[in-house]
Amino acid sequence: MTGLEAVRWNADGLVPVIAQDVSDGRVLMLAWMNREALAATLERGEAVYWSRSRQALWHKGERSGHTQTLRGVALDCDGDTVLLQVEQQGGVACHTGRRSCFYQTWVDGDWQPSEAVLKDPAHMYGASSDE
Amino acid sequence: MTGLEAVRWNADGLVPVIAQDVSDGRVLMLAWMNREALAATLERGEAVYWSRSRQALWHKGERSGHTQTLRGVALDCDGDTVLLQVEQQGGVACHTGRRSCFYQTWVDGDWQPSEAVLKDPAHMYGASSDE
Repeated sequence: MTGLEAVRWNADGLVPVIAQDVSDGRVLMLAWMNREALAATLERGEAVYWSRSRQALWHKGERSGHTQTLRGVALDCDGDTVLLQVEQQGGVACHTGRRSCFYQTWVDGDWQPSEAVLKDPAHMYGASSDE
Repeated sequence: MTGLEAVRWNADGLVPVIAQDVSDGRVLMLAWMNREALAATLERGEAVYWSRSRQALWHKGERSGHTQTLRGVALDCDGDTVLLQVEQQGGVACHTGRRSCFYQTWVDGDWQPSEAVLKDPAHMYGASSDE
């Protein structure tokens, strides 16, 4: 199978998508796409996810300006996960104001948060983790 | 919530887990863990996933020797995805003999595979994508 037909969507018609900063390899976030979102991402050259909470296309950064410019797209061996190489506009992928969503690290039996990048991210993103 | 209680498992009791090579940031694979798998990973210091196809714990590399030594564990902002920093033993994470499972890149409307690392990975891994 070729093109988007090669993607193995799950029972909900979605695949997990990893966004990685192309500048230094930092893993920024994991979100989901349906076929329409992946097609829109490829056409637009910016990450467009599927918001599971809102059940709608989610053009990442549309409000905040923190869009993700596409630099590369890869599919894994069994076709059920996508990896995006992106240029993260504004340097902040997470709605908490941090560069990466993976800011809680396991230390001595619990998760330790790192510092936020922005002091008041709610002004930029609102309360929801989906923009 | 603290510790493993902070993880938000999906309806099947699983979370997606990204494995990243700590040496250079290459994203190696995405697999899944249930609570037992994550606890085993933390205790053992090597990645132990949940095989959805076999419905069993999957100690990655147990047969091939390509284990993943744990160097760091992070949880994302909404607690439903885990990121592992690993030292990939043998340098090969994918059952196809490639370093990373994300070896198919999107070029001109289709996925283009990169070259394999091992010439005959079936000898090492068998036919299944789950070891």
